[in-house]
Amino acid sequence: MRHLLNMASLSTDEIYSILDQAESFKSGRNWKPSEELFAANLFFEPSTRTKFSFEVAEKKLGLQVLNFEAATSSIQKGETLYDTVKTLEAMGISLVVIRHTEENYYKELIGKTGVSILNAGDGCGHHPTQSLLDLMTIRQEFRSFEGLTIVINGDIRHSRVARSNAETLKRLGANVLFSSPPEWQDETLGNFDYVSIDEAVEIADVMMMLRIQYERHKDNTDRKKTDYLSQYGLTIEREQRMKQGSIIMHPAPVNRDVEIAGELVECERSRIFKQVENGVYVRMAALKRAIKMATKELV
Amino acid sequence: MRHLLNMASLSTDEIYSILDQAESFKSGRNWKPSEELFAANLFFEPSTRTKFSFEVAEKKLGLQVLNFEAATSSIQKGETLYDTVKTLEAMGISLVVIRHTEENYYKELIGKTGVSILNAGDGCGHHPTQSLLDLMTIRQEFRSFEGLTIVINGDIRHSRVARSNAETLKRLGANVLFSSPPEWQDETLGNFDYVSIDEAVEIADVMMMLRIQYERHKDNTDRKKTDYLSQYGLTIEREQRMKQGSIIMHPAPVNRDVEIAGELVECERSRIFKQVENGVYVRMAALKRAIKMATKELV
Amino acid sequence: MRHLLNMASLSTDEIYSILDQAESFKSGRNWKPSEELFAANLFFEPSTRTKFSFEVAEKKLGLQVLNFEAATSSIQKGETLYDTVKTLEAMGISLVVIRHTEENYYKELIGKTGVSILNAGDGCGHHPTQSLLDLMTIRQEFRSFEGLTIVINGDIRHSRVARSNAETLKRLGANVLFSSPPEWQDETLGNFDYVSIDEAVEIADVMMMLRIQYERHKDNTDRKKTDYLSQYGLTIEREQRMKQGSIIMHPAPVNRDVEIAGELVECERSRIFKQVENGVYVRMAALKRAIKMATKELV
Repeated sequence: MRHLLNMASLSTDEIYSILDQAESFKSGRNWKPSEELFAANLFFEPSTRTKFSFEVAEKKLGLQVLNFEAATSSIQKGETLYDTVKTLEAMGISLVVIRHTEENYYKELIGKTGVSILNAGDGCGHHPTQSLLDLMTIRQEFRSFEGLTIVINGDIRHSRVARSNAETLKRLGANVLFSSPPEWQDETLGNFDYVSIDEAVEIADVMMMLRIQYERHKDNTDRKKTDYLSQYGLTIEREQRMKQGSIIMHPAPVNRDVEIAGELVECERSRIFKQVENGVYVRMAALKRAIKMATKELV
Repeated sequence: MRHLLNMASLSTDEIYSILDQAESFKSGRNWKPSEELFAANLFFEPSTRTKFSFEVAEKKLGLQVLNFEAATSSIQKGETLYDTVKTLEAMGISLVVIRHTEENYYKELIGKTGVSILNAGDGCGHHPTQSLLDLMTIRQEFRSFEGLTIVINGDIRHSRVARSNAETLKRLGANVLFSSPPEWQDETLGNFDYVSIDEAVEIADVMMMLRIQYERHKDNTDRKKTDYLSQYGLTIEREQRMKQGSIIMHPAPVNRDVEIAGELVECERSRIFKQVENGVYVRMAALKRAIKMATKELV
Repeated sequence: MRHLLNMASLSTDEIYSILDQAESFKSGRNWKPSEELFAANLFFEPSTRTKFSFEVAEKKLGLQVLNFEAATSSIQKGETLYDTVKTLEAMGISLVVIRHTEENYYKELIGKTGVSILNAGDGCGHHPTQSLLDLMTIRQEFRSFEGLTIVINGDIRHSRVARSNAETLKRLGANVLFSSPPEWQDETLGNFDYVSIDEAVEIADVMMMLRIQYERHKDNTDRKKTDYLSQYGLTIEREQRMKQGSIIMHPAPVNRDVEIAGELVECERSRIFKQVENGVYVRMAALKRAIKMATKELV
């Protein structure tokens, strides 16, 4: 399938193939499609990071880019996502990158449109290019996922990547654990053990911090931010107990001094900005893959 | 005149010349200006469809594109449209595409600026590229407008294209009728007969549905949507009574199951997404015409 | 320093060098960097004029451009400006143009990031490309600044350019005076004399009008607009008393018939739209300078 919707629909070979292509882009090789192609970025939730990353990736591949701002669009006029995407297709757009508040929004699109869909986040569901850039960053560090201990820490319940990262990493051979305050644990995510943050830092090769998704919380009784850091977050004291060679990751934007002490964002163990850098290359690879597969389908 | 403001100011020859050029672009020929040119899209009303269509057209012609979002602009600082356009001209912009809430907004601009104005919709007034893409779609089907029966159906009073489509189609030889609930009829549109929807579907070669422009209605006592479809809209039952070879058009975005049954949007008679496709080529033709005429004026 | 933050940090030689480069661009010479570069425009306040001007300049230099709309960004998620800029750097962006509500916002960035910062306005502080285009316009008229009498008129207290224009023009040899209603005078701007508007028009070579910055006023007890024009603004009667060869400038957008009579905006003495035109060339020069200096730092 030329679409990129979630990690579960990628085979292990496909995952490694995307990572290899991303590394090739990072090493300086480029590739451009043989004809002029249009990509549209449809973001129904605020985002700078992911949208800009896709836009840089698209432009590096020589694509023409259309940016859709939900706030100023005819969606306000009650048009369905299906009609919007069919309209873009009729205009000659080949690739559509979508972030949407609704989980599985893409189910009404697949099989009914000739454009390639790249999911840039759906509700609390999936965010496959984020997962892929996380994998790329871990592989750069440890070469293989086999036997690594990876602790996913924080707001498990509202995270787009907790579930798919956990499943994919387990599939690739890693030992995955969760660490979370009780109210953000999520039993539906499968058979993963929970450990305390204090245990986590001593056993993890990778501390994969999650962003607290305040905007997805339904109540306003959030824990006090400073309490959160000391009880569940990555403090300077805890970072000092981490294993030699272990790393810290975070999808960003970081809530400094909530999930993680501000001083740790750019510490030696941190790969946070490297993740951002890898994101551009992973997205280039995902775009190239969609373009290549669409061409094959036509032949 | 190098501007494209409304259909009335285009001669019949000019209309056919734009349609021919649009067909040439559709057949795969391209054309680019000999020097780098800048186009600006100024949309003072929400729009995805028309703005993206112009943007694709501009980029296919190799133009540099600036997108203006009314919500984040210095128009908020009280600047007149005249001053905005003069400013764009001073920056070196050659072409300005404008959608504005005010009818005839362009009257304060024409003759006072060196930029070419392409009207992308003014209040309840005109939307010439929409009219041109409608013409292109009809001509593809029937080769000529002579003797065709075309029924324009729906929210006549608040439509940007009802009047200019009616007048232009009549000029080109078609027999034009209106069909509308009593409160949306508009006697000022000239000498066109009204027929019921049930009569319309049996005589029309083209059912040209209009979008209900809820956002331009001053009262909130809208008819119940389901009532509207059964009384005045295009139901599946009515579609089945349409003549052989007749087609359905709609400028979109469609209010599914209000103006038209959702199932009909992509039925065999529907040309709705073909209209969208033609829109890009018509706009390329309008842009090329403006560029060519501006060059001649300079010589 | 490759950043462009304020006029005070530019030497006199650097100022003339930017003006010379801008004139070279205006005369039709172009220059493009040897590799693909990305620029991002981050505007945290509404702006059309300055943003479009930078965007045209960037595109004329062949840069890839990302436009950031504060309203739809993850800044809403509480990210700091520092983290945003570091993120852009990690994505491969080289140049960041920033307009921000906070004076000296750039202090937290300088020395901590590899991107080049071009200040497009900070609070009531600085707006160096506006100052440079003002200088370019004056020099085109008078060839030198030496001995010119320049009156800066209007909302001195809330202006981004009053202070830096005054200091820079004095440094370049001009005689600078202020003219302002009492409540908008600003004693902190240094040793400049105030004159009445009636005196000003008779002695000025350049009447440099400021925009009234209603959006930065904390009270709502604004003077009645018509009263302002007759008491402190540039009326037609006052324009007629101006010296032969003297010119009128305004950074725009103009509040017509408040700071200046509407009829004067395009009068013979007015250089208002010429300033806009010069703005593009000055920004091209500032961007080229930043690119060249960044390259040198790397060598």
